[in-house]
Amino acid sequence: MRLTALAASLVLAAAPLLRADEGMWTFDNLPTKKIQAKYGWAPDQAWLDHVRLSAVRFPGGSGSFVSKDGLVLTNHHVGHHWTQVVSDAQHDYVKNGFVAMTRDQELKVPGLALYTLLEMENVTEAIEKAVPAGADEQAAAKAKGEALAALVKDQTAKTGLDCQPVTLYQGGQTWIYRYKKHTDVRLVMSPEYGVAAFGKDWDNFSWPRHDLDFSLFRVYENGKPYAPAHHLAWTGKGVAYGDLTFTVGHPGRTSRLETLAQMEAKRDVTNPLALRGLDRMRGSLRAFAAQGGEQARVVSDQLMGVENAYKVVAGETEGLRDKVAMAKVAEAEKELRAKVEADPKLKASAGQSWAKVEEAVAQQKAGAAEATLLGAMRSETLGGALGLHRYAVEMAKPADQRAPQYRDEKSLAGLKARLARIDPAAAGQEAFALQGFLATVQQELAATHPAAQLLLGGKSPEASAKALLAGSKINDPALRKALVEGEPKAILEHPDPALALARQLAPRLDELQKKQQALQSVISEHLTRIAKARFAVYGTSTYPDATFTLRLSYGAVETYPLSGTLAQPFTTFAGLYDRAAAWGPKAEEGSWELPARWVERRDKLNLFTPYNFISTNDIIGGNSGSPVVDKRGELVGLAFDGNIESNAGRYYFDARVNRCLSVDARGIVEALDKVFDAKHLVAELTGK
Amino acid sequence: MRLTALAASLVLAAAPLLRADEGMWTFDNLPTKKIQAKYGWAPDQAWLDHVRLSAVRFPGGSGSFVSKDGLVLTNHHVGHHWTQVVSDAQHDYVKNGFVAMTRDQELKVPGLALYTLLEMENVTEAIEKAVPAGADEQAAAKAKGEALAALVKDQTAKTGLDCQPVTLYQGGQTWIYRYKKHTDVRLVMSPEYGVAAFGKDWDNFSWPRHDLDFSLFRVYENGKPYAPAHHLAWTGKGVAYGDLTFTVGHPGRTSRLETLAQMEAKRDVTNPLALRGLDRMRGSLRAFAAQGGEQARVVSDQLMGVENAYKVVAGETEGLRDKVAMAKVAEAEKELRAKVEADPKLKASAGQSWAKVEEAVAQQKAGAAEATLLGAMRSETLGGALGLHRYAVEMAKPADQRAPQYRDEKSLAGLKARLARIDPAAAGQEAFALQGFLATVQQELAATHPAAQLLLGGKSPEASAKALLAGSKINDPALRKALVEGEPKAILEHPDPALALARQLAPRLDELQKKQQALQSVISEHLTRIAKARFAVYGTSTYPDATFTLRLSYGAVETYPLSGTLAQPFTTFAGLYDRAAAWGPKAEEGSWELPARWVERRDKLNLFTPYNFISTNDIIGGNSGSPVVDKRGELVGLAFDGNIESNAGRYYFDARVNRCLSVDARGIVEALDKVFDAKHLVAELTGK
Repeated sequence: MRLTALAASLVLAAAPLLRADEGMWTFDNLPTKKIQAKYGWAPDQAWLDHVRLSAVRFPGGSGSFVSKDGLVLTNHHVGHHWTQVVSDAQHDYVKNGFVAMTRDQELKVPGLALYTLLEMENVTEAIEKAVPAGADEQAAAKAKGEALAALVKDQTAKTGLDCQPVTLYQGGQTWIYRYKKHTDVRLVMSPEYGVAAFGKDWDNFSWPRHDLDFSLFRVYENGKPYAPAHHLAWTGKGVAYGDLTFTVGHPGRTSRLETLAQMEAKRDVTNPLALRGLDRMRGSLRAFAAQGGEQARVVSDQLMGVENAYKVVAGETEGLRDKVAMAKVAEAEKELRAKVEADPKLKASAGQSWAKVEEAVAQQKAGAAEATLLGAMRSETLGGALGLHRYAVEMAKPADQRAPQYRDEKSLAGLKARLARIDPAAAGQEAFALQGFLATVQQELAATHPAAQLLLGGKSPEASAKALLAGSKINDPALRKALVEGEPKAILEHPDPALALARQLAPRLDELQKKQQALQSVISEHLTRIAKARFAVYGTSTYPDATFTLRLSYGAVETYPLSGTLAQPFTTFAGLYDRAAAWGPKAEEGSWELPARWVERRDKLNLFTPYNFISTNDIIGGNSGSPVVDKRGELVGLAFDGNIESNAGRYYFDARVNRCLSVDARGIVEALDKVFDAKHLVAELTGK
Repeated sequence: MRLTALAASLVLAAAPLLRADEGMWTFDNLPTKKIQAKYGWAPDQAWLDHVRLSAVRFPGGSGSFVSKDGLVLTNHHVGHHWTQVVSDAQHDYVKNGFVAMTRDQELKVPGLALYTLLEMENVTEAIEKAVPAGADEQAAAKAKGEALAALVKDQTAKTGLDCQPVTLYQGGQTWIYRYKKHTDVRLVMSPEYGVAAFGKDWDNFSWPRHDLDFSLFRVYENGKPYAPAHHLAWTGKGVAYGDLTFTVGHPGRTSRLETLAQMEAKRDVTNPLALRGLDRMRGSLRAFAAQGGEQARVVSDQLMGVENAYKVVAGETEGLRDKVAMAKVAEAEKELRAKVEADPKLKASAGQSWAKVEEAVAQQKAGAAEATLLGAMRSETLGGALGLHRYAVEMAKPADQRAPQYRDEKSLAGLKARLARIDPAAAGQEAFALQGFLATVQQELAATHPAAQLLLGGKSPEASAKALLAGSKINDPALRKALVEGEPKAILEHPDPALALARQLAPRLDELQKKQQALQSVISEHLTRIAKARFAVYGTSTYPDATFTLRLSYGAVETYPLSGTLAQPFTTFAGLYDRAAAWGPKAEEGSWELPARWVERRDKLNLFTPYNFISTNDIIGGNSGSPVVDKRGELVGLAFDGNIESNAGRYYFDARVNRCLSVDARGIVEALDKVFDAKHLVAELTGK
């Protein structure tokens, strides 16, 4: 263990692979034998029903019922938007936190709906039966689609539940999940952003962590607190190092069935390209922000988004560079390919698919730089000119041959309004953005590349940007208005240099897009073939890729090699205050500054209460807010993040370093009690 | 900043290089302009004299006077051995700590001598003058050596000081450093090992850190506390994030003038080879330890040594793999080569030297596996047999043609005693060790390699080890004794299979050694030429490689990108207790268990007192115990380690991530006061 990344890569290559606690398992298909063998205990049906019926789906996240009175626990960051929704100019509940001291004070959240998964039905056979004998692939797909839609409609009418079709194993199984939908949801409690996201964006994905990333809502029905059939009891015992843990939630998306060629292309070409692009965007935004306080304010959100994206892609890329893990991916692919080769039927359908994907990926790689660059021009001038040009080209066609959004009057009116509108923020940044974009073109494309010739024509990015901005009036509202309101074909002949450039760029872009789409459809088709072959070989002995439907993962509280030592399995409130003291309130724009209430009440807290912990549970975005449950089916924690090493989790699960980060249930109770004086909530949660 | 390693490598490549706080500067040649420009302040001569005269050299480490009564501060790990020396069966001061509550209780440490550097004299010119006109290189070296020895002798007699010659810049400068030697040194205070090295070997090199790695000694003269002319005052103000800091100490050894070819060979061949070897050694030791408690006890020290070595080499290798840093190394080499090419005299002496080194390194690389393997056989059987064989070979020669240790009776008697002695610990592990060694041979050398053929002869490592151990009686004390006491030439004909193998191995080993020595002497010669050229070009605008003589480095308390976030600049006692609580006392053999006194007195401490901190000071092994001094010349901390990223510091200084770890002076005082009740020491240190 005690290894650096290098050491780990050298040593663990030789070590026998651990039986990884891998998988986002559906509730009908848990690997109970594996769990029993490793942990000496496995869930039974009653346990599974209990935790499933306690689970709740949020928009984009997860949660759970934690009291008999419909109290729902989720992450602060899952509830963030909804907390903002109930805030107003006088009440910033995100910044200052919120506690309803009585039920009267609970704030109804407009627009928020939660779902609980009551029933799941495997309709694969029923759907297959709908296919008429001798139907070709297209006809079969159509018949199945119609049968499924009819089933959903029928079940919805019969059950009164929200019935949703679910495709697992890339089409290997089709289910209907029947949900109860809750539409009266109220905010009960939310801590301050400064403690919920302590360390702000810096600490995103990091460990050791000190985030009180929870909030509480309550479901109402007919104006009364809803009484769920099941809720998770709040254990006072908590969880210990090595203990078995389960997460129950809605992982959003994984791509673990992508081929090695795709992952390598991401690792070697597209991710580094994206990172360089993000880095330049960051540089351009920073240069803009450096002009003054107002400019800094305007781009602060964008900058944060870029930073976060950078961290995600960098973490993922680091994972894809891990030789040991990638060797496992390669091994699994090799094994499946051998099994496909050995089965004549599978060989006929999917035997060539890996090669086909590889070929398409190689072509994607070759055009990646231009596609990425031209696909994401950060320039109001070029973007505006291209929009106008496209509009003019479409309008020159007979109405029925135009792209859909150029056909009817209503769409056209909206489009024209958008074309006439110049985003003032973007226009203000244009000098920086255009020059940044052209610098990227210069760096990523050869000087002789046709797109580079069009955009730079041998000049420097500075000179090209200056010339275009000096010559073009496209960001002049009067000109925009005149062009949009005038005859479209006038645009096609207008001498503005931005429009002239757009006339040359547009055909390239169209060509590029067509090519990429063609490659993507080849890849999609063959990935589906591979997935079908995989399901034919392994069936449900594996788990399906994530689909933002309810899954269960098992694992344990476990350390991992970190920064030359072992990661501590828990943090405590003492660690929170240690870091606040270490940085002081002002460093890095107050990223580790604690809210005033936390400073004042420090000495009331038992500082050594467990606060956050790590476990080997296999989770991903969408799992945020998942309850962490022990073998008694009681709540011991609240998953809120993965460590930075888990950013490769989209492609593979690495048991050595992939860790789920949770808020400890004991920490939540301690904070509610000592910092928020919410003794009524403590009593409700702990049943005392 | 907020970057992962990958992100850093992608982004910082493009960023303008920071003016690094690099360098282990001699006291006569501080880059004051650079310091002034960056920090708005630089030391004057009085400041320099003050801190130099406050500094103390320990065996293998550093320290400083911290009171007018000769109190000396160093690291617990520098004082560890000496604390052991004054311990006995009844008093384990390493484990339990020690505090002298009165001066009477201070424990005299036999054998410990400390040095303070009173004067430094540049004698380069004087020595050069001793070279007779027209002398060739050899004669010149001899004349200079004699002149230097005479000067040292003369100065010693005149000054009564301990005069030591110092060669800087690989021969570019020669100095005599005159030290006062202190031989009456007493142990005053040492904390428990469990808090001084909290996190044990796991935390070695890691950050955030929580080590109270200090101890206090006192120098006596004529039975009374010694009154040093200078000592460092203990500042109550401490140091803040961003503050300028200096370390004053004795960095042991750097190799920053090695060529790129040498570093690349370490990175690509010799370090990975060493790491694989260490890993196998660890495996073999663990297998031995797994047999039972006694076996585990016997090898625990070895295992710890292997773990530490692994971490050092792994960290160093990771550093050598850093593309950005290595690009800087390459750039510097390119610049120097260009300057050498441009100067006819330098070109004549060193123009070919890089190519010569590269060529020799390439040959070293080719033989590295065999040289490393055969140079470090972990086998009592093979080692014993080879020793006996060599002895017999030498004894067969006339006395005056033998290697020196085989000539006179006294040396021979010692040698024979060693040959007759079988290390019982090694003999006990022999089955594991020999098989491990042979497994290494199998893995590192081709089956057709002559050494592999000799040692394995096509058999498996298990079978070869078994056969040799079954057939050889070389570890039988009676046979050893008989062979050593009998006629040496009998050994050359003895049928024992280990001796038979030694007869075949020895010539290979001799050949190998000769070849490696020849290559090494080529490398040494050309490195000296390069160093001379470098000194001719840059003079004292750079700093010399470390030589375990007094140096000053400057820097600041500064974060670095760590594990997806920014490293906290300080830790506090709250962090110490947080980690102890996070792990619990039993995890990982009690590595994070606090001594009882620390558990009992937790609530007496101000938990948020600064405890450890990081700074950009350029230090390396030997600097342990260096005082960290602020611009007032007062003590703010005590350097005790580098982070894991600093393990590449032997080759280059990487300002982005290389950090010096120190105990905060405020933390030491708080612990002395609240945990150790040593109010008399607090008063002495703080002058209150």
